[in-house]
Amino acid sequence: MRIEHGIGNIAKCLRLMLYDKPGHLASVATEIARHNGRIGDIRLVRAGRTHNTRDLVIYVSSEEQLEDVVDGLAQLDGIIVEDVTDLVQDIHKGGKIATKSRVEINTISDVRKIYTPGVAAICTEIQQRPELAYQYTVIPNQVAIVTNGTAILGLGDIGAVAGMPVMEGKAALFDRLVEVSGVPILIQNHDPQVIIDTVRNIAPTFGAIKLEDIKAPECFEIEDVLDAELDIPVMHDDQHGTAVVVLASLLNATRFSGLMLRKSVVGVIGLGAAGMGISKLLTSYGVNSLIGADLDEAACARFSTIGGKPCSLAEVMKNAHIVIATTGCPQLISPQMVRKGSVILALSNPNPEIEPELAMQSGASFAADGKSVNNALAFPGLFRGALNIRATKINDKMKIAAARTIAKYAEESELVPALLHPEVHQAVTAAVERAGLESGVIKPW
Amino acid sequence: MRIEHGIGNIAKCLRLMLYDKPGHLASVATEIARHNGRIGDIRLVRAGRTHNTRDLVIYVSSEEQLEDVVDGLAQLDGIIVEDVTDLVQDIHKGGKIATKSRVEINTISDVRKIYTPGVAAICTEIQQRPELAYQYTVIPNQVAIVTNGTAILGLGDIGAVAGMPVMEGKAALFDRLVEVSGVPILIQNHDPQVIIDTVRNIAPTFGAIKLEDIKAPECFEIEDVLDAELDIPVMHDDQHGTAVVVLASLLNATRFSGLMLRKSVVGVIGLGAAGMGISKLLTSYGVNSLIGADLDEAACARFSTIGGKPCSLAEVMKNAHIVIATTGCPQLISPQMVRKGSVILALSNPNPEIEPELAMQSGASFAADGKSVNNALAFPGLFRGALNIRATKINDKMKIAAARTIAKYAEESELVPALLHPEVHQAVTAAVERAGLESGVIKPW
Repeated sequence: MRIEHGIGNIAKCLRLMLYDKPGHLASVATEIARHNGRIGDIRLVRAGRTHNTRDLVIYVSSEEQLEDVVDGLAQLDGIIVEDVTDLVQDIHKGGKIATKSRVEINTISDVRKIYTPGVAAICTEIQQRPELAYQYTVIPNQVAIVTNGTAILGLGDIGAVAGMPVMEGKAALFDRLVEVSGVPILIQNHDPQVIIDTVRNIAPTFGAIKLEDIKAPECFEIEDVLDAELDIPVMHDDQHGTAVVVLASLLNATRFSGLMLRKSVVGVIGLGAAGMGISKLLTSYGVNSLIGADLDEAACARFSTIGGKPCSLAEVMKNAHIVIATTGCPQLISPQMVRKGSVILALSNPNPEIEPELAMQSGASFAADGKSVNNALAFPGLFRGALNIRATKINDKMKIAAARTIAKYAEESELVPALLHPEVHQAVTAAVERAGLESGVIKPW
Repeated sequence: MRIEHGIGNIAKCLRLMLYDKPGHLASVATEIARHNGRIGDIRLVRAGRTHNTRDLVIYVSSEEQLEDVVDGLAQLDGIIVEDVTDLVQDIHKGGKIATKSRVEINTISDVRKIYTPGVAAICTEIQQRPELAYQYTVIPNQVAIVTNGTAILGLGDIGAVAGMPVMEGKAALFDRLVEVSGVPILIQNHDPQVIIDTVRNIAPTFGAIKLEDIKAPECFEIEDVLDAELDIPVMHDDQHGTAVVVLASLLNATRFSGLMLRKSVVGVIGLGAAGMGISKLLTSYGVNSLIGADLDEAACARFSTIGGKPCSLAEVMKNAHIVIATTGCPQLISPQMVRKGSVILALSNPNPEIEPELAMQSGASFAADGKSVNNALAFPGLFRGALNIRATKINDKMKIAAARTIAKYAEESELVPALLHPEVHQAVTAAVERAGLESGVIKPW
């Protein structure tokens, strides 16, 4: 089992000039390790007569740590630090997405086809037979990525505009993984009714709606109302994308630990968007005994309505064979609380409720943290599959099919496959299409 | 002066096998001409031993005419019609735009930069300094192309979805001409307040708003309210894009005919979106004597509020040195009505209020129709320029600067340059930037 350790969130590129003698790169690596920095790609930029220039990517946790590394390297013999650049800032400059033309526009003939006068014939055809919009427009390939910025990553309510880099990241992954056109929509408003009205009004532009990083409890109402009103899929990724990847992880984790998922007592700690999404999907999958803990009474009440049994943190830890924590509270779970033989997914990022190694030492049969459970594994195939069959919903059968497929593509010792696995997203797409067709969530034309 | 004649709106591609002897292509061309069809590109697809295969694009006005052409060709000796395909349909299939990633995503390192965990640092920076959204997101490069589908081309209220091919066409031109990311937004609603609320709610996503094909009078209220409330440019293209290109055309037309635009009596026939936009810009340019006609009393009243003098069609034709018609009524202007020496722009598409040739024969010093006045010449540079300087408005100075620049790039005998002129959009951009900076419509940071 590969358990990834905390890697610093700050990625920097050091341009180094090194005296070309064996051992100099080794001393660089040693110095970086001495400051607890991690090394990414190393690229030879220029091979000079006596010196080489290399770009070396390091990951650190703070600016102070970076300074220590750079100072340390500067004092080494035969090594000059020429430049330090921020890779993350560079890649985000100018935004990460663009609307591009899919057609060549080289001559006035091209213009006359894509624009007036030629386009009028296409408009008229769609007016007469609305289903032709699926053939002649980008609508069936477009997914709105809607946020109000209230629960951006682990950062909380930072506002919709500050959340845009995340929305663009999702859109970039949509394009890269399944060629869906993701369209970020920022709505700077806390009122669920405003989000609902706005999304409803612009919905004709899209083949599906992906709600993103909207905080609980508003996210539940927004999703429920829109899903009921619109005839295209509406899915809150923080609930259901996460749930699918967690189910996939559990399918493999229970295999490793010899538990039967459906017969196990499953405990969910933290009943926000992710916790509730996970609980709903596990119930739908066939888990009968679901207990959960949250400090918020309203959250516990919501958990009851889907058949979960609210109890205390201590009770969950004592009784659950499988524990899934999504609280955002580092070190919430102490070693003493770990039940022997249990499976623990401590999913809060960047710092889990209990470090997997510590959980294992304390008697868990299996443990992992959020870094092993990338929720971007689910949404591309879920939406691509739903769009392909013109589904009106992404239902639990489709989600479970996606989870099973994701689990299947994990390598022997992993919970889930790598995000850039060359086949997994196409396989998830196919599984979602099939499950959707079998359950009949198709738009009648 | 090149006056373009009515070309059929239906573009078809004929794949022909021709016996390889001199004269066969000539006989094909003759046969097509006999049926009044027009020929576009001809491409040699395959040069065989005795026969050649060619793709030949023709423009016809009806399916019957196409049938006549195909039947006629089939009866020619040595010619086989292998296939007939619809070029316009083909080019629209699957939609004409896509959201693409601007960044390479090849390794997990890339993912960690554009998505979690790396993206969190960028979000936090924007939260702390909101102006960094201009550096790290696509927002300042995105223009919403908003329609409710009530005035799509000359087709009227065909609905927002049926209008999508036009919105995508605009987005494709935005990308091709000035690399702006155009994002179509369809709002299927006739209530101006719903359009206003919806656009206001999603406005943080965009650097500017382009209202498109929204009918009068709702378009005026929608534009006025949004322009006043939002701190980004809001422009209704059917009013102002058209006005800019008409002003550019007039700058050249008056040069051809020896009139002075500012000193002339200008008559506007049809006081809808285009007519009002033209009237406002001409007033701003310095035209003092503006008369206009419309059957709708409310339209005439609106015209009065901007200093125009409403009167009858006959009075406009009798008194105006320059006539601009945007009524959608073919042949509204009879030859007897043409004032000697006047300039007439009869802009309704596809059939003008008076054919330019007829207007010239009837005594006009200059005449043109809508085909010579492509309104897509204005919007790319107007928005690119406004975005580049972070303008809060696109004001009349910027529009007039755009019009002057467009006029300047027209070839000797033309009213305006070709849409794909390699320099005009960059030149318009630069002129708009300068005019915007001089008039101080900049967002204060």
